[in-house]
Amino acid sequence: MPGAGVPSAESGLTFQLSKNDGSARLAEIHTSHGVIHTPVFMPVGTAASVKSLTTEQLKNLGTRHAAPGTDCEIILNNTYHLMLRPGIDHLERLGGVHKFMSWDRAVLSDSGGYQVFSLAAIRKVREEGVEFRSHLDGSLHFLSPEKSIEIQTRMGVDIAMAFDECPGHGSSHADIERSMELTHRWAKRSLAVRRSPLAVFGIVQGGVFPDLRKRSVEEIAAMDFDGIALGGIAVGESKEEMFDTIRLTAPLLPADKPRYLMGVGTPEDLVNAVDAGIDMFDCVMPTRNARNGSLFTSIGKVAIKNARYVDDEGPLDPDCDCLTCRTVSRAYLRHLFVSGEIAGLVYNTIHNVWFYLDLMRKVRQSIASNSFAAFREAFLLQFAREND
Amino acid sequence: MPGAGVPSAESGLTFQLSKNDGSARLAEIHTSHGVIHTPVFMPVGTAASVKSLTTEQLKNLGTRHAAPGTDCEIILNNTYHLMLRPGIDHLERLGGVHKFMSWDRAVLSDSGGYQVFSLAAIRKVREEGVEFRSHLDGSLHFLSPEKSIEIQTRMGVDIAMAFDECPGHGSSHADIERSMELTHRWAKRSLAVRRSPLAVFGIVQGGVFPDLRKRSVEEIAAMDFDGIALGGIAVGESKEEMFDTIRLTAPLLPADKPRYLMGVGTPEDLVNAVDAGIDMFDCVMPTRNARNGSLFTSIGKVAIKNARYVDDEGPLDPDCDCLTCRTVSRAYLRHLFVSGEIAGLVYNTIHNVWFYLDLMRKVRQSIASNSFAAFREAFLLQFAREND
Repeated sequence: MPGAGVPSAESGLTFQLSKNDGSARLAEIHTSHGVIHTPVFMPVGTAASVKSLTTEQLKNLGTRHAAPGTDCEIILNNTYHLMLRPGIDHLERLGGVHKFMSWDRAVLSDSGGYQVFSLAAIRKVREEGVEFRSHLDGSLHFLSPEKSIEIQTRMGVDIAMAFDECPGHGSSHADIERSMELTHRWAKRSLAVRRSPLAVFGIVQGGVFPDLRKRSVEEIAAMDFDGIALGGIAVGESKEEMFDTIRLTAPLLPADKPRYLMGVGTPEDLVNAVDAGIDMFDCVMPTRNARNGSLFTSIGKVAIKNARYVDDEGPLDPDCDCLTCRTVSRAYLRHLFVSGEIAGLVYNTIHNVWFYLDLMRKVRQSIASNSFAAFREAFLLQFAREND
Repeated sequence: MPGAGVPSAESGLTFQLSKNDGSARLAEIHTSHGVIHTPVFMPVGTAASVKSLTTEQLKNLGTRHAAPGTDCEIILNNTYHLMLRPGIDHLERLGGVHKFMSWDRAVLSDSGGYQVFSLAAIRKVREEGVEFRSHLDGSLHFLSPEKSIEIQTRMGVDIAMAFDECPGHGSSHADIERSMELTHRWAKRSLAVRRSPLAVFGIVQGGVFPDLRKRSVEEIAAMDFDGIALGGIAVGESKEEMFDTIRLTAPLLPADKPRYLMGVGTPEDLVNAVDAGIDMFDCVMPTRNARNGSLFTSIGKVAIKNARYVDDEGPLDPDCDCLTCRTVSRAYLRHLFVSGEIAGLVYNTIHNVWFYLDLMRKVRQSIASNSFAAFREAFLLQFAREND
């Protein structure tokens, strides 16, 4: 079996679980670009840019009033976007993603699989890999497990994801099974070409079918990955199906590796998934919602364009220590948003990303003090209230 | 004559001329929101936002490597834009523009005149004032000298501009004369309603006609304004006509008041206008060009989308201490720009605004050391070179 027997210790990553509180876990991931405290949220830096923010801003979202520990310690980059633009040859010549975007902390990249199946025009899925056309210019490209890991290696990321097939929700048991088995074969091939110090995470598939999810966990867990991700989640299934799958799968994952729930989700989703034993998250929600004027606060969502904020001198969220909440008012944020000012998108993004990072800090704090269950209950109650 | 006899000392502004180098002047303007070192460039914060930048960024454009003295000490706000959105009642309730945008340094506002004549649909220009329709929603509004000064007072700015008529280039001598005389009568009415501590600047008109410009300077200089601006410049006339007008007019202006050239211009224009004795400038060029990917550097303009920068690891401008040049490469700036990333506009704006502010710092330094003529010659030579 290719890749088996390559010890994780050869990767640049170590995982130290410090404690459990119920199923919630407190841990540290050590990389050559710093320590990541989990549970962690990873802002999405699609094309080597967390949308609307300079790297300097991403490093300084809070004010000096802010509680320590909310810093952004890791971001996600999209292999698909970066292989198309600027292109991996350019990116490698320029010294990799860290140097490219002037980011000295950790980077995780996805494998490109999800975007190939959701953005590109697919020509052919074969055992070997996927031939697809760029959504930018129609040019023809090819991704395979080997090719994806090679690209992620050349990007210089700290954590790479194995290349997987991402079927949408609604496929039959037989189709999901076939796809899952392909993903398993691709997982072995991804692992076989891992070269130190790159860490590689495997991806569990299996749709909403408990038997398939169980089999997928068993097979992926048996391989020597540095961490394990749940893929094929939040692809159209109901919230109930999503959490059934997470609660079924998470306890089966090895305790000594980080667990990553890909592409999820709302603040409530994150808190509930931590409760199920998940350590890592990424989602475009904070950055995308910011650009739509939908802002997360300690008392629920705020639609900043609402006319009720026209004379509102107060901060967006009085409980927030981000730069936005500490320097400008709801009235000003509304004005910038309705005026189409770029600075409005920037202020909104600073706040939303901070909100997610700060929520994870509070989650970690509550696990450390064995009070995660109480924290979760209070958070869900408070956050849901204003949403009604 | 209404307004005559109101001493400038009652305004919150004092002007201290420290030295001349040829016709170039080094001075300080003291306001209740800090000292402004002139010659100065004022970034344009149209709708209470210097486009693409948060207020925090505007205060921290440079890095710690940067020479002191490049800080942004004053910005311009547009009365026309702010009276339409959020509206003066809201803005006043919210504590004025400084509090609104969290800016504790000086603000100069224009009178709204220029935008009324360039953006709005004009219903009627009467002796009393101008009736116009908003370019946003077609709503009907009225601006007069009294109304404009009242609005600027309620905005809480440090320096207001008298309300003037802004005819385009190409009008006849008779039309420009008629318009100029209206501007003079409006200047008196603007001054009559000035209330301490608001400083008000008068505006010289007269188009490209030397006899009219001379008359306009005489009339405006005879009024008790806190500073004098040249208006109706860069409205379609040739560069030669523009500088003929500036060189004719500037020496006729009172030496003991700040001289402000409205809406100008390129870096070369600023240096040449300082040479003619101008102290203050504003222009949308650095911010607007930044959004178009046109960047000012010590060796001329850079069109950042150019394919030649795809592998360019160097800083945008090796001689620049702005945050952009000290943290990211030309290759990254090109990538962000061609990818349509908001952060690209932010990085570009940081650099362009810094370039203008830093140019003014160098201008001041050279005047202080009696070497402005040499500085100007070297700058024009170096800056023009790459433009060819």
